[in-house]
Amino acid sequence: MRTISVVPGDGIGPEVIEPALEMLAFLGLDVKLDVLDHVNAETWLRTGRALAAADLDRIRGSAATLLGAVGDPRLSDTPYVREVLTTLRVELDLYANYRPVRLWHDKLSPLRDKAKRGIDCVIVRENTEGLYSGVGGNLSAGSLQEIAFDLDVSSYRGVSRILDFAFSVARTSVCIVDKANAVRHGGTLWQRCWREAVERHPDIDTTHLYVDTAAMKLVTDPTAFDVIVTNNSNGDILSDLTAGLAGGLGVAASANLNAATGQGLFEPVHGSAPDIAGTGVANPLAAILSVALLVEHLGHTREADAVRAAVAAAVEHDRVTPDLGGSLSTRQAAAAVLAELR
Amino acid sequence: MRTISVVPGDGIGPEVIEPALEMLAFLGLDVKLDVLDHVNAETWLRTGRALAAADLDRIRGSAATLLGAVGDPRLSDTPYVREVLTTLRVELDLYANYRPVRLWHDKLSPLRDKAKRGIDCVIVRENTEGLYSGVGGNLSAGSLQEIAFDLDVSSYRGVSRILDFAFSVARTSVCIVDKANAVRHGGTLWQRCWREAVERHPDIDTTHLYVDTAAMKLVTDPTAFDVIVTNNSNGDILSDLTAGLAGGLGVAASANLNAATGQGLFEPVHGSAPDIAGTGVANPLAAILSVALLVEHLGHTREADAVRAAVAAAVEHDRVTPDLGGSLSTRQAAAAVLAELR
Ligand SMILES: CC(C)[C@H](C(=O)O)[C@@H](O)C(=O)O
Ligand SMILES: CC(C)[C@H](C(=O)O)[C@@H](O)C(=O)O
Repeated sequence: MRTISVVPGDGIGPEVIEPALEMLAFLGLDVKLDVLDHVNAETWLRTGRALAAADLDRIRGSAATLLGAVGDPRLSDTPYVREVLTTLRVELDLYANYRPVRLWHDKLSPLRDKAKRGIDCVIVRENTEGLYSGVGGNLSAGSLQEIAFDLDVSSYRGVSRILDFAFSVARTSVCIVDKANAVRHGGTLWQRCWREAVERHPDIDTTHLYVDTAAMKLVTDPTAFDVIVTNNSNGDILSDLTAGLAGGLGVAASANLNAATGQGLFEPVHGSAPDIAGTGVANPLAAILSVALLVEHLGHTREADAVRAAVAAAVEHDRVTPDLGGSLSTRQAAAAVLAELR
Repeated sequence: MRTISVVPGDGIGPEVIEPALEMLAFLGLDVKLDVLDHVNAETWLRTGRALAAADLDRIRGSAATLLGAVGDPRLSDTPYVREVLTTLRVELDLYANYRPVRLWHDKLSPLRDKAKRGIDCVIVRENTEGLYSGVGGNLSAGSLQEIAFDLDVSSYRGVSRILDFAFSVARTSVCIVDKANAVRHGGTLWQRCWREAVERHPDIDTTHLYVDTAAMKLVTDPTAFDVIVTNNSNGDILSDLTAGLAGGLGVAASANLNAATGQGLFEPVHGSAPDIAGTGVANPLAAILSVALLVEHLGHTREADAVRAAVAAAVEHDRVTPDLGGSLSTRQAAAAVLAELR
């Protein structure tokens, strides 16, 4: 029996993890849960850290991890969020952040041109390097002379493997996004790795866009994209942008993967949303769709597809929370998906 | 008599600068032109550089500069573009990249919800620091061990002055955009400077968004924004994104400014567009709107407003190039604006 570790986290994290776990239970897979409900802001406030070595060991020992959200307004001036998320991504070497974006129903698109609405792409975001390296410092901190440095790091190994990952999940094409015309050191490395990756994957079309152009093309014609692969910070921005083209963060799920070890951490793209935490209206769909990614990762493609079809049906029938134009609570919206599944 | 230096550049640069200069001539201001038509890819190919110290002196000595576009496919593996643009921005200390985005006509919006279409905001982009510092290198370049480093630099002075600039151009509110939850060293400096700027400008509302959230909000409700201020690379992405919400790069103008010295460089946001160069269909509106920003900068607000009104009228009457759904050539579209102005 495989173990799934679960980190509910903060704010709406636990609120959306509860229905997500109900969904997992409903699917009746042969798994058991290991819930780490102390990995949160309270623990950080009490002890100054939130993720102990023992927690990491439990997570590492599990078949997959489901995370709700981390973040707390009392800790916004601290490295809390970064420490939890980046530590998980880096310590487990989950180098591929896989963020599929699909329009579950035409009505969720903010776009005017019907022909351009049907976004169905994946943002593949490098997840362990880039501007998230944490390397840097603050010269003369606190003074009028302060200068802050953050190092954007790309390695040949890191870029090559994320490109290979992108090609491996592409159906028709890979669009490589960088800023090689302005950020030259990383840019030339990405360009080199791109040229080499193209030779390894002659069957898949590739295009290249600078990140500014990619952002513009995404709002004018998102249907032009299959897989977009880019670095950590560009991927962060483009994945929220594309989520906005498909109904927002309420339906954006993600997987953090290592294709070699098979490790995976699954989480909604949304944060802890302190503004709505406790009000019972958080959208459970992103967490439920993260469960779909998780069970698919464990080999249960049929179940994953069924969950997605049920989500699409619930959206179609307007059985959704206020962020998608409905009037249901978190529990009701989750129940609606379960009802569609039955 | 004041001098305007003109750098037509490459590709469609000269094609859009020609009508832009006709517009300038039509306005009948007391200026003379200093055209630097050797600052381009040909010069780089011949001599290995494109912008000599003497060129910089001429530009520095002028009242303002109008630039078309730089870029050439034969030089995409070189620092050519970066060198010309970043040198101009940095050497003249044009720290504020001012990118107004206005919907010239409802029909140009890609958004479905009529109430959300009317984008009318300014992206204020820090223009001399950030990831564009050029500081970095490539360890073990060309090998399987290559690691590329690019330094993201923010100074107290640089962040404070761009925030002050943003407040100075705001009508109602300033939204400060950073990634302080993940890119901590620069992030904490931006947060500190934000807190201080708020105290200096108590009359203007401020909000804060992480850059990913900002990208999402922009596609779902761009009307929520007045001025957005952010660092160099975020500003690059968000300004193309917003351009996409207002008809694309064909109508996106920008000013690179130093509020202390009064120096300014004005340019369309678009590049040299090698794919359409020479075909006569480049949209001249972004260059013409850059002329509007230029003459406004020189104190001719009435003329600037007249140009903008003429552009809006030409768009309304569909007297535009193919990128905006029309069928006019560059010259015809420019003539249409002149006709509206008369
Ligand atoms: C061409 C490129 C280097 C430039 C930039 O990134 O600054 C352009 O995209 C812009 O926005 O002016
Ligand atoms: C919360 C934040 C640090 C995180 C990130 O930037 O990676 C989030 O925005 C995401 O996209 O998962």
